[in-house]
Amino acid sequence: MRYTQILLKTSKESPSDENAKNAELLIRGGFVQKEMAGVYSYLPLGLRVLRKIENIVREEMNAVGASEVLMPALTPRDRWEKTGRANVDIAFSPTEKTILGWSHEEMATPLVQRFCNSPKDFPKCVFQIQTKFRNEPRAKSGLLRGREFLMKDAYSFHLTQEDFEKYYDVMTGAYHRIYSRLGIGELTKLVAASGGEFSKFSHEFQTISPIGEDEIFWDEKSETWFNAELADQFEKSKKSAHAIEVGNIFPLATKYSDAFKFGIDGTSVIMGCYGIGISRLLGTIVEIFHDENGIVWPKNIAPAQVYLAPIGKDDAVFEKSDALYNELLKEKIEVLYDDRRDKKTGPGTKFADHELLGIPFRVVLSENLLAENLVEIVDRKTGTVKKITTEKLIEFLKK
Amino acid sequence: MRYTQILLKTSKESPSDENAKNAELLIRGGFVQKEMAGVYSYLPLGLRVLRKIENIVREEMNAVGASEVLMPALTPRDRWEKTGRANVDIAFSPTEKTILGWSHEEMATPLVQRFCNSPKDFPKCVFQIQTKFRNEPRAKSGLLRGREFLMKDAYSFHLTQEDFEKYYDVMTGAYHRIYSRLGIGELTKLVAASGGEFSKFSHEFQTISPIGEDEIFWDEKSETWFNAELADQFEKSKKSAHAIEVGNIFPLATKYSDAFKFGIDGTSVIMGCYGIGISRLLGTIVEIFHDENGIVWPKNIAPAQVYLAPIGKDDAVFEKSDALYNELLKEKIEVLYDDRRDKKTGPGTKFADHELLGIPFRVVLSENLLAENLVEIVDRKTGTVKKITTEKLIEFLKK
Repeated sequence: MRYTQILLKTSKESPSDENAKNAELLIRGGFVQKEMAGVYSYLPLGLRVLRKIENIVREEMNAVGASEVLMPALTPRDRWEKTGRANVDIAFSPTEKTILGWSHEEMATPLVQRFCNSPKDFPKCVFQIQTKFRNEPRAKSGLLRGREFLMKDAYSFHLTQEDFEKYYDVMTGAYHRIYSRLGIGELTKLVAASGGEFSKFSHEFQTISPIGEDEIFWDEKSETWFNAELADQFEKSKKSAHAIEVGNIFPLATKYSDAFKFGIDGTSVIMGCYGIGISRLLGTIVEIFHDENGIVWPKNIAPAQVYLAPIGKDDAVFEKSDALYNELLKEKIEVLYDDRRDKKTGPGTKFADHELLGIPFRVVLSENLLAENLVEIVDRKTGTVKKITTEKLIEFLKK
Repeated sequence: MRYTQILLKTSKESPSDENAKNAELLIRGGFVQKEMAGVYSYLPLGLRVLRKIENIVREEMNAVGASEVLMPALTPRDRWEKTGRANVDIAFSPTEKTILGWSHEEMATPLVQRFCNSPKDFPKCVFQIQTKFRNEPRAKSGLLRGREFLMKDAYSFHLTQEDFEKYYDVMTGAYHRIYSRLGIGELTKLVAASGGEFSKFSHEFQTISPIGEDEIFWDEKSETWFNAELADQFEKSKKSAHAIEVGNIFPLATKYSDAFKFGIDGTSVIMGCYGIGISRLLGTIVEIFHDENGIVWPKNIAPAQVYLAPIGKDDAVFEKSDALYNELLKEKIEVLYDDRRDKKTGPGTKFADHELLGIPFRVVLSENLLAENLVEIVDRKTGTVKKITTEKLIEFLKK
């Protein structure tokens, strides 16, 4: 990617209508643009990060045997009438007979029912990575609470409670692996939450952060995190934390299979559902990984691994830089090439942009460095600077 | 993929509420499910094909320097008021102040405007692959005309008419490459269409098919295909054909840049837009590539390359088959493994499913074949059958 070719422009000014740090940095860095409350466009760099998060989630869902499908956003209202959820406040209704999906139990249950009608068809789990719509009255935390947002939702179907519980644990493991691969594994806690009408508990995954809207509590006796809903059932200890909900897994029992008469040999199928907000994760990761100069992306979701920054006016520097850019591409190392040569764009601008954009390594070329046949490599996270040859650079980056 | 694990069940019966062949075969093959008129769910095999089409389109857009973005479906109504398109019949309005995007000029123009404010920022082209919503009164041709559908839409921005025209030609080339990679290159014609209020012509890409809703005509003098709108401007020759519109490129002149006051040095920016219906292409390809037994996918968008079908009751056959499945996966050859072993699923059922699903090669294992250390390979398109060793099989498939 060349800086001058993709749609990219950074800004020093914070947007006036955003309080959330994630939205501020993502907008200033040209990752997203706000279109209205809770609705964002993804620009090339933001979309790259979003797709990387999405792919990690997809790989872990595939790994636990879930099959990917894609259900529509436009859903028939009569399905929601069957489950008693047709008149929920957050639902958008584009026509009298349709609702924009804000969750997909009403679509997934009849879909799987159509294909699974014999005991040998179970267990089954389907997932999708799809755009959801919720008319949120308080869309105010940047990417954390959108009116349109990207979500992974999975639905599992079982013949026995034991089989469901086994899979619920398998899915819990997949969720932990996802957060770990995203770099927020240690901060993300499995938290007991109310099971609503369906079961004793459901579980949230909560990432500890001072800006979190939720408060979670630690029960010393059972060594369990729990949320405020369960304050009566656990003993509130002294240890608590603010946290951002980054996932939710939920036993549905037979609520939806009963509604759609989905049973095998007269027994209703037992269901679970498993959600992760992909765009919310993007926002959460920015809340966790930033410093006073900008974002510090974890390596495996960074929009690129290298920010290539030639500085000065020397043609030879830019020629060397072009060559290095092509070499990095050939080695399949992702590069954002700051190829700007206009007078306004000095080293300070390039370095500040690198820090705002949060790409793991900055590689600098200059006339002086070229004379020594060296490049300078700066680690965004630690600030460590070293000078190495381009041969060593590629070796280093491929590690 | 194992047949018994993914969500898959074929049907011999045609759906009663679909007249279109593409919908019939895609539903019978378990690629899609109809949820309501013009609204489909994609099941695992259908989603795989959709993603492959999408990726070919994406690669060709990247190759002509377009930057991928993702704009929301939920758009502010005031944008559409500025361009006079707020009250279009096909627009869904979830709330008084929002419209579900049925095209994205109203979003793309201000988005690019925000990032491009100096001559050096031009030309610029952005594209997205995104879900569109249109309240189509005649959603009746299966995947060809949906109320919710996946579309690639690109928007280009230029300082001069010459630069726009040059890029329009570049984009025309990219479109031809897309159709060619999808196997419909020869059947797909560049067709002159009305330029509306903006320009003399726009262009459609039309794939010749007897079920096409459009009629296109050949002008011998200018050696040009044109559509019915231009009957007055060309001489209607004897050569005409029914065709399915699979793409559309359109000079927008300054209509949208005027509406959003997007100019450089006092001159409005010149725009073009370039659409391809991804889910419509899926339907079109099925209309073109099927026979009396089912779909015949072109290789580079087939949901898998191999349909692995062990037959009979012999454990050794299934063991050999499991081993071959793993070997093919290791070689990164995509396989749909028909691992069904129940009594109802005889060779006839497996072979019929293979033909309905349209996977390029069927690989059969049986007790007799195993005795000779051979497998049988059947070409879905030609019906050719040959027996080869598994070593030769992998060599053959990797070609």
